[in-house]
Order: sequence, then structure tokens, then C-alpha cells
Amino acid sequence: MAFLRIFLLFSLLSLAFSHETFNSHVLPRPLILEYPENVEIQFKEFAEELRLQCTSWRFAAETNNLSPWKTIPQECVDYVKDYMMGRAYSIDVERVSKEAGVFAKSVELSGDGKDAWVFDVDETLLSNLPYYAEHGYGLEIFYPVEFDKWVEKARAPAIQPSLKLYEEILGLGFKVFLLTGRSERQRGVTVENLNNAGFQNWDKLILRASDDHAKLATIYKSEKRNEMVEEGYRILGNSGDQWSDLLGSSPSVRSFKLPNPMYYIP
Amino acid sequence: MAFLRIFLLFSLLSLAFSHETFNSHVLPRPLILEYPENVEIQFKEFAEELRLQCTSWRFAAETNNLSPWKTIPQECVDYVKDYMMGRAYSIDVERVSKEAGVFAKSVELSGDGKDAWVFDVDETLLSNLPYYAEHGYGLEIFYPVEFDKWVEKARAPAIQPSLKLYEEILGLGFKVFLLTGRSERQRGVTVENLNNAGFQNWDKLILRASDDHAKLATIYKSEKRNEMVEEGYRILGNSGDQWSDLLGSSPSVRSFKLPNPMYYIP
Repeated sequence: MAFLRIFLLFSLLSLAFSHETFNSHVLPRPLILEYPENVEIQFKEFAEELRLQCTSWRFAAETNNLSPWKTIPQECVDYVKDYMMGRAYSIDVERVSKEAGVFAKSVELSGDGKDAWVFDVDETLLSNLPYYAEHGYGLEIFYPVEFDKWVEKARAPAIQPSLKLYEEILGLGFKVFLLTGRSERQRGVTVENLNNAGFQNWDKLILRASDDHAKLATIYKSEKRNEMVEEGYRILGNSGDQWSDLLGSSPSVRSFKLPNPMYYIP
Repeated sequence: MAFLRIFLLFSLLSLAFSHETFNSHVLPRPLILEYPENVEIQFKEFAEELRLQCTSWRFAAETNNLSPWKTIPQECVDYVKDYMMGRAYSIDVERVSKEAGVFAKSVELSGDGKDAWVFDVDETLLSNLPYYAEHGYGLEIFYPVEFDKWVEKARAPAIQPSLKLYEEILGLGFKVFLLTGRSERQRGVTVENLNNAGFQNWDKLILRASDDHAKLATIYKSEKRNEMVEEGYRILGNSGDQWSDLLGSSPSVRSFKLPNPMYYIP
């Protein structure tokens, strides 16, 4: 039902166009003069409807209302591209980091070195936007072999507001755990990439061991957080772009969901 | 920092206006002719910036990234009003209900009468929009005495897509629990309002008893879900407009977050 209206509008639009193309020479002049305005209004309505529908889809994706999805809706490719490349995404990540920073400063640390903050890596500290820009902003089905080639380059830039938050968190005296779905085999390039992008002095970088590969991200990350809690850490903050970074057992006191309308990891 | 740019633009705008007001009679004609276009562009930029900032605020609110907030940002009143009264809110609630319905149909029920779906009441089944439209769409600080007078009228309309989902869920054979932050004293009017709006045949309507009033909603609702689980129910779905409806202990297999940019209940 959701996109029915769009297709209806689209059909109307093609109807308007086909009229102009085939019949304009037989129509009386005044009607020809009226067409462009009509088409312009329909275009505007179409664009507005698309914006509404894709914003609604993004809301549903970001609030975890959708079943696991593999690709973004075809109709929303331009919307997602504009969102990621324009100011909207930057404004959103800046706001999340600011809110996280305010919370981090409001917490009284115990001073026993057991206050921890967990960060995810991809689309949280590092941006793979250069890769996704080359692969339809999430329209293409995820192809691990291709993505791993990109990871091997260790060239993902920092998400700047996340780097600022990261340094604030370290400065406040939190222990920083990086908990990523990347494979243990990628430890070298991941460290290299993180360092290149300006990230240093984390306490532990946790990657998927061979037993972890079959597990859903939510399970794998919950298990790793459970281990932290068993070691006596208090997980006060957790920053991630996926709900599978944030939900599950041993949750943090406050979780911060970074935006990511390009892919979903269950 | 978030609204600094808006105020900067706003200052620019007033500057442009003040120029026109005070100096237009001394400026040479061509300059006067150029002003309206300039002002129009600045207006458009201002409106676009406001839309970006308020959409970003709504994203942060809906993903639970903000600290508990008491009122919506002053700058976003018109944005929230347009969102709630226009098609955007309707599209969003329709999508949530549709996704929930798809999930509900995909579940194989055990047939022992222990498969349960939890619904919140306010802004999930019933809409208090007529009340909030009279109180600044969340700009006014919540005033319980005034709100209770509205509740006593039992005139909150159904959120139509939620009513449709509710009936689907019942039809599929789920046990339906209504879990609301409303007080036990309001049981009579709540039942009356729900019936008037078309809701019937729930299994249990749970309201706050006197011991529950001091508890945070997250705690109170978690305790009530714990009781359901202790009684042998499997909570498969949970629909609510607040994260305090959905997070905490005994969570549902799938949670559905309805939109609500007007108020926040921790």
C-alpha cells in the first residue's frame, strides 16, 4: 500500500507526458500553454510524496520497526543519497555525539577504572560512505568479498563528530571498548585504519573470532558485553549505528543510535 | 550549537527586512527591485534549515537519543504541528501497523492460549491529539490536572491503523494485554473510551495501582511484563509510542515503536 500513491502519481505523470508528446500538435494553443504548469505541479506533488514516503521508511528503519531488510527501497535511492551526502546526515551524527557527550559529562565516574563506554566501528567511528557511494547507497545486495577489499585498504575516514566524542570520553577517564562485527582476520587493517583516522588509546578492540561468525550480531555483541560485566565493568554508554549494537543482554545505561539508512544487521 | 545557524539566518533575515523598511526610499531603484528575490531566497533557506534541524531533532527523539525532555523545542512547534496534522504522521502509524501485522501473521501460534501481544493505550490505541492541539503540540509543560479532565471525557478517538491491527491480532488468536500508565482510578473512563473508539475483547487492562505511581514507566511496565511471563505467557509483540513501553525486562520478540514527537515518558 505504501508506494501505491506514488505509482498512481507516476502513472498520472506519464499520462500527462504522453499527451504532450503525441497530441500537442493537434491541441488548440491555449491548452498547450496550460500543460507546463500542470506538469510542474504534478512533479512537485510527486517529489513531495516521495519525500514523505522515504522519510517514513527511514523513521521505520531507524526505530527498528522493519523486519530485517536486505536493500533500501528502489524508490528511495535518491533520497538516501541526498540524506547521506547532504547536511542532514552530518546534522544527525553531530546531534547524537553531542547528546552522548552531555550524558558522559553528567556521569560521576567511580575512579576504579571500571567505567566503560562501548563503540561500534563501521558507520559509528569509521565511515564506509566512499564504498557505499559506489554501490548504490544500499540498493545493491551486500557483497562481502567486495566490501572486504574496501576494508583491506584501511582508508575509511573518521566520522568527525564521533572522533570528537571518542576523545571526550577518553579524556573523562572511561575505559573504551571497540566492539565490531569485523573478523579477527581484519585486526591488522582495522587497527591501521582506526589509527589513520585518528582513533587511539582504546582499552580493547574486540573482533569476531571464528566461533562467532555464525552468530547474529545481537547475540555476539550481547555475549561480549556479558563478559565485560563479568569482569566487573559498568557499561555506562554504548554508541552504535545498528540496534544489534545496542539491544540484548548487559545493555548500557544510555545507548546512542547513530543514523544509518543504508544497511541493516540483525 | 544546533540552532545557532537558524538564529544567524534569522538575524540576516531581520537585517534584510530592516533595510527594506527604513532605507528603501533612499536606495536607487534597481536595488529596490533586487530585494524581494533576495528575501525570498533567504526565507526559503531559513525554512529549509528549520525543517532539517527539526527533522534531526525528531530522529533523535524517536531513536531515544535525547535525555528525558519535558517540552518540544520552541522552534519546532510548527514542524510538529504540520507533522501531526498533515499526512506524515498518518503515513508513519500506518506503516508501523502494517509491519506489526506482517510479523503477527508470520508467527506460528502454539494454540495453548499463551501467545500474547501487549498494547500501550495513549498515542498507541487512542489519540490525544485533540488535547495536544489545544496545548501547543508538546510546547506546554505537561499539566496532569488539565490532561485528566480530558481523559475524563472519554472522547479520545482511535488511531485507525492501530484499531485495524488490534482486530487482526485478536483474529489471529493472540491474547491481548493493554498496559497503560493511566491510573487505576481511571479504569471506568478508560474502558468507556476504548469501547467508544471500537476496542473490545482484550484479555486484561492493566493500569497503575497506587504503589506504581512513584515508579518510572520503564520499571512499572517491565514488572507487569515479568508477571505475564511468570504466568506462562510468551510476549511476541509489543506496540507503544514510548521507549518506556518497549525497553526493560521481559521484552517482546518484536517491538513496534509508534511515532510521538509531542512528549516523552521515561
